[in-house]
Amino acid sequence: MMRRGLLLILSSPSGAGKTTLTRMLMAWDPAIRFSISATTRAPRPGEQDGREYYFRDRQTFEHMVKTGEMLEHAEVFGNFYGSPKAPVEAAMADGRDTVFDIDWQGGQQIRNSALGRDVVSIFVLPPSIAELELRLRKRGQDSDAVIADRMSKSRNEISHWAEYDYVIVNRDLDSAFSDLVTILNTERLRRDRQPHLNDFVRGLNQEFEAR
Amino acid sequence: MMRRGLLLILSSPSGAGKTTLTRMLMAWDPAIRFSISATTRAPRPGEQDGREYYFRDRQTFEHMVKTGEMLEHAEVFGNFYGSPKAPVEAAMADGRDTVFDIDWQGGQQIRNSALGRDVVSIFVLPPSIAELELRLRKRGQDSDAVIADRMSKSRNEISHWAEYDYVIVNRDLDSAFSDLVTILNTERLRRDRQPHLNDFVRGLNQEFEAR
Repeated sequence: MMRRGLLLILSSPSGAGKTTLTRMLMAWDPAIRFSISATTRAPRPGEQDGREYYFRDRQTFEHMVKTGEMLEHAEVFGNFYGSPKAPVEAAMADGRDTVFDIDWQGGQQIRNSALGRDVVSIFVLPPSIAELELRLRKRGQDSDAVIADRMSKSRNEISHWAEYDYVIVNRDLDSAFSDLVTILNTERLRRDRQPHLNDFVRGLNQEFEAR
Repeated sequence: MMRRGLLLILSSPSGAGKTTLTRMLMAWDPAIRFSISATTRAPRPGEQDGREYYFRDRQTFEHMVKTGEMLEHAEVFGNFYGSPKAPVEAAMADGRDTVFDIDWQGGQQIRNSALGRDVVSIFVLPPSIAELELRLRKRGQDSDAVIADRMSKSRNEISHWAEYDYVIVNRDLDSAFSDLVTILNTERLRRDRQPHLNDFVRGLNQEFEAR
């Protein structure tokens, strides 16, 4: 009997390194599934349905919420975002872990869902706010106004750090990634995630009986 | 502010490798404290008070139990065994982890004590019962009757495997030890074991305020 996949939730303020860590994790173990969110916002140039997001119209999205097909969802600036449940359950049954790159609202909802006991949640903190802003500026993509907006959202996001099982302070990427892998390896070892142990111990008992 | 030390409980049937793993762990991190049990049994030749055991007379032992100085205790073949609480609490306050080489009875009591939330418990299983018996015989110390007795106790001990947080099947010592270290590293990372994070996040908020 195989291990049930777990739900790894990674949250952090924008710029703390969560997306890079997620990519490194998927390269480290290609069996890990990335949870692609559904959204009602329009695709941007270059975005592809089923790769960056599942793009759905509002009616379809609301129907999915109503029929319980979303593990979590939230409205942000007039658009809906959510994590479809079916692919997560399929991965779990298949013994594959799913990683969620979501914010504290999504994290709360999944932790409080029926799948909550399968959740491992990690909050990634920046070493300092100055460093966080520096990383955002280095991307060179955003205007001052957008950066100011992100920084204000970051403060709100950081205020939820204490709801997570683990906290990684991303001082340097290699040691943050090493912490992430250590956590995942350990959580996979937890007794309640190794249902095959039931059969293994039954085998030991049969060996005792046969002595 | 420093991390509070945790209580690492290792249980296993005799011969599964627990004692060797414990020794490897203490060599890996000399800051880890080994919990020395108190007992009412007489010292054997070569045993030293405060090294193998704290040797106490029955009256002293019972007094310690009555005054709550024992974290756990049990009677085995007419002798009392127990884990004194004071050195464990001192180590915890000092940010040092304590490792307990105890059986399922002791494990249950510590998990259900006031220190229960600081416990990480690991059960070490042998790869097979044949291998377990082989390892006992290889020691060459014990008569057939003693080995038969140990095997019967082993069966009882194994029946409690599902009460532990983690299970390690000791197929080879190196990978079992690697699992053990991975678990300890991860448990040290848990948010609720890193009280200094409160100060760290307060610092981040002050940085936001000062912007």
